[in-house]
Amino acid sequence: MVAVEAPLEIRVGGQPLVITMRTPGHDEELAAGFLFAEGVVTSADQIVSILGEVGSDASTREELAAGKIGSGDRVLVELRGTPDAGAVQRAQRDFRATAACGVCGKESLDDLDQTLPSITSLDVSTELLGQLPDRMRPHQTLFDATGGIHAAGLFTLDGEVQCVREDIGRHNAVDKVIGRAMLDGAPSLGDRILVVSGRAGFELVQKALKAAIPVMVSVGAASSLAVDMATAAGMTLYSFVGPGRGNLHL
Amino acid sequence: MVAVEAPLEIRVGGQPLVITMRTPGHDEELAAGFLFAEGVVTSADQIVSILGEVGSDASTREELAAGKIGSGDRVLVELRGTPDAGAVQRAQRDFRATAACGVCGKESLDDLDQTLPSITSLDVSTELLGQLPDRMRPHQTLFDATGGIHAAGLFTLDGEVQCVREDIGRHNAVDKVIGRAMLDGAPSLGDRILVVSGRAGFELVQKALKAAIPVMVSVGAASSLAVDMATAAGMTLYSFVGPGRGNLHL
Repeated sequence: MVAVEAPLEIRVGGQPLVITMRTPGHDEELAAGFLFAEGVVTSADQIVSILGEVGSDASTREELAAGKIGSGDRVLVELRGTPDAGAVQRAQRDFRATAACGVCGKESLDDLDQTLPSITSLDVSTELLGQLPDRMRPHQTLFDATGGIHAAGLFTLDGEVQCVREDIGRHNAVDKVIGRAMLDGAPSLGDRILVVSGRAGFELVQKALKAAIPVMVSVGAASSLAVDMATAAGMTLYSFVGPGRGNLHL
Repeated sequence: MVAVEAPLEIRVGGQPLVITMRTPGHDEELAAGFLFAEGVVTSADQIVSILGEVGSDASTREELAAGKIGSGDRVLVELRGTPDAGAVQRAQRDFRATAACGVCGKESLDDLDQTLPSITSLDVSTELLGQLPDRMRPHQTLFDATGGIHAAGLFTLDGEVQCVREDIGRHNAVDKVIGRAMLDGAPSLGDRILVVSGRAGFELVQKALKAAIPVMVSVGAASSLAVDMATAAGMTLYSFVGPGRGNLHL
């Protein structure tokens, strides 16, 4: 089976904000997480409604071919009051700057020192962290079907899985789990561990820090900028994680 | 060792065009390939000079720490005559639209039918194609050192390796090999095979088609949009490729 990669337009107050490629499913969470990561909203209170245009279930090409109704091309977001025009403009510019590639690293790191919430560093056992990818695997159903899709998971400090989401874009998977927590009214993610199935690039570390997540586990490698950013903020970043192994970046 | 992820600004005629995150090294190739993929230049003849600001050798964090001079933050491109303002604007917009995520799939597919060169479909043996990832591996020296970096390779139809480049961004690795071929004055890549170490997303298929490459091999999965785009253009797309296996998308 082949994972679907399809465009989604996020509209805020009727106005197009961005178009992103994603795997259909949980589009509302994706929109919420994206708006939060970009600073357009800072809490769920500001969101009046988030509506995907149609159902959002066909995540593989074979399901689409079988006539399963796919998701719409749009998510419509209504915010309390008019969103600040400056914040929306910044979000559009930031999106260009941070999607996959693009962003001036130095300036970005400096900016982050000012704009990211202070996180509370946590001491967690690498033994526990090493088990988390295996605990996430049973929830990666699209990966089982397609072999080509990323996952992100939120775990408690005891290693209990809270939410796992999959997407062809790894940043989207992270937006989805953070968006879900936000829509559920989570007061803080300061006691959560973020697990990602692929590499830890700086943009994922940035999203985690924005949500005040103090511990991040990646199955793949961490980049130099990701390590610099995580260590500067006091985040625990544990890369190349598997049973009994991992690189702790301090 | 940790692969470097650092910003590069591409300037054309002294004006900033884009900032992209990349692994330092072969920055001139990256700039050439990017400008070609975005349609700012259509042949190497239009390029007067491409100069990276400093040497471009430190690709790992450990090399940087050891005092190895890293690459500069900029590549300066001079073109013959003034580049068309519209093309530059489109490149900036396209960059936003195609970097990792972002682009309206439907519109993109329609656009592509009009703007992509017609490619000549080729019949190549899947037996040969299945060997190419293994032939690329010895050239993936940064992957050996870091375990976290993508590669792209250009091969002849006989399966002979022409050029392999590595980058933390898979689209950058593809830009680098196509840029290298362009700077070497390759008249056409219509008799070349592109091999990528990761997944075949639509944006990589798009870059290959733009360069008229008729065959693409990916070690990872292909996305639905990549399959649609490749089959519509008559490209041979072979995904999940390893010794004796692969998915042929026709």
